[in-house]
Amino acid sequence: MITDPEALSRSIIEGHRRAIARAISKIENNDPDTRIILDTVYKHVGSTHRIGITGPPGVGKSTITSQMIKAFRKEGKKVGIIAVDPSSPFTGGAILGDRIRMQDAFTDPDVFIRSMATRGSLGGLARQAGEAADVLAASGKDIVILETVGVGQVELDIMDAADTIIVLTVPDMGDVIQGMKAGLMEIGDIFVVNKADLEGAERTKTDLQFVLELKGQSGDRKQNVILVDARKGQGMDILLKEIKEHRRFLEDQGLFEAKRRKRKIQRVKVLIGEHLDREFWNEKRVELLNSLVDDRSPYEIAEKILK
Amino acid sequence: MITDPEALSRSIIEGHRRAIARAISKIENNDPDTRIILDTVYKHVGSTHRIGITGPPGVGKSTITSQMIKAFRKEGKKVGIIAVDPSSPFTGGAILGDRIRMQDAFTDPDVFIRSMATRGSLGGLARQAGEAADVLAASGKDIVILETVGVGQVELDIMDAADTIIVLTVPDMGDVIQGMKAGLMEIGDIFVVNKADLEGAERTKTDLQFVLELKGQSGDRKQNVILVDARKGQGMDILLKEIKEHRRFLEDQGLFEAKRRKRKIQRVKVLIGEHLDREFWNEKRVELLNSLVDDRSPYEIAEKILK
Repeated sequence: MITDPEALSRSIIEGHRRAIARAISKIENNDPDTRIILDTVYKHVGSTHRIGITGPPGVGKSTITSQMIKAFRKEGKKVGIIAVDPSSPFTGGAILGDRIRMQDAFTDPDVFIRSMATRGSLGGLARQAGEAADVLAASGKDIVILETVGVGQVELDIMDAADTIIVLTVPDMGDVIQGMKAGLMEIGDIFVVNKADLEGAERTKTDLQFVLELKGQSGDRKQNVILVDARKGQGMDILLKEIKEHRRFLEDQGLFEAKRRKRKIQRVKVLIGEHLDREFWNEKRVELLNSLVDDRSPYEIAEKILK
Repeated sequence: MITDPEALSRSIIEGHRRAIARAISKIENNDPDTRIILDTVYKHVGSTHRIGITGPPGVGKSTITSQMIKAFRKEGKKVGIIAVDPSSPFTGGAILGDRIRMQDAFTDPDVFIRSMATRGSLGGLARQAGEAADVLAASGKDIVILETVGVGQVELDIMDAADTIIVLTVPDMGDVIQGMKAGLMEIGDIFVVNKADLEGAERTKTDLQFVLELKGQSGDRKQNVILVDARKGQGMDILLKEIKEHRRFLEDQGLFEAKRRKRKIQRVKVLIGEHLDREFWNEKRVELLNSLVDDRSPYEIAEKILK
């Protein structure tokens, strides 16, 4: 077992599964080695296409992901998947089960699937998912799929690490707009109505298109809506074509690099924020805070501590 | 129109609606007056019971809230409601519409309803909602209800400001566990299965109870599951009784004050974090960051800037 972070990094770059798995575990545990590993692999992340998949629970994200893996593998592409579940470790169980079953289906050495769940604080999860994507990119994967469960802020933060974001829904999900809350309409590059065999699929597509047009283009490109029946694999060819067109669009407009740059700046800011917090809250200041919590307002207390 | 923050604060404490509304607008806009207002009103927040309501979209949170307002009003209690929608301003429209209709139904001067939505960054929303709750508490409301839309991290953060958290679901929401993602099982003090007239309500209740028992008590007290038909007002008496029992429990155990203290400490930490970030990112450092974004890793860049 390789424990030296430099050796581990080299092993990642050579594409060894166990090295990748170990590095992601280190990222999850905020192991100090993480820094050395990321510094080394960062030079090798290349131009891997990072695809985000998100949407409300129950819309078939795992099924779509499985189909995408198959489709990309047919083209000879190496694929990495990070499935992030920001829910609690407890409720995360079911998802992990799905993952393991999914992994079983892919004994293919050029497919790497990994679940990441919250360990205590949610704060670092988006950063950790982004770092895991870097590791997979450096290991030579052509495609990295970031899949999230749910529609909250952490999920949106995780999607920041993707070049192309696919937002999933199903026909007549109560009210499409309801299901599409929390900024999903804004972040999607491609919208997929899954379970297209269900009644109302066409209408959901039309509704979505209408809403997207109504709000105007939020992204840089027209956001298309696609009907897919992931279970049967129907519509997957169109989805793959859309994904590729979106990447081409990003490259043509210089946005592929611009997004990476913006993402990196954001990552530096998060790291510095975490550092400033750690540095600031020494034992003395924590004590001071505890002693000041009386009937003063939080602003007054903050000011006193800052002085 | 009162613009002086001290006069505005006095007006809030006297319970004037317009002063409350103006103060919350200032909080939303991060107006510098906010600080003065909060410092002043903080001494008057008293022992208002803060009740959080959360759950997936479409479970009837607004209906339950309306019924709770009615029930508390019957007891002569003054009620304030903060409905927070962390989704985009665009998709927020529908919710605001609901709110306005709800407000129409309550021309009662002892009920104050306010929607808060994201203005740009989501980061401050939980803090702002907590501050708005402080303003309502200081204005003499006996009950402040914090209602959120959705099940993401921001919603969980907002619930931190509540003494008693009610988690809502409906019968056979696809899979109950699916709908209960993202830590909801952990944070709920009281679980409500709304639309109890629908088929499967009893089973959903049993399922929920089973899951809650399985995971063991996460809170301090047994988490009860209640069947409610909010539209008809059925079960609201039981819910109200549960809410009051939870408050009594908190007070008996000294947890009512302990929670307030913990919440305030958290608030100070957020304020200081925001301050440190603002102080750190001066023009020079932003320029340095922009000049360093090449093939170095985010960790290397962060380290260079910190030096």
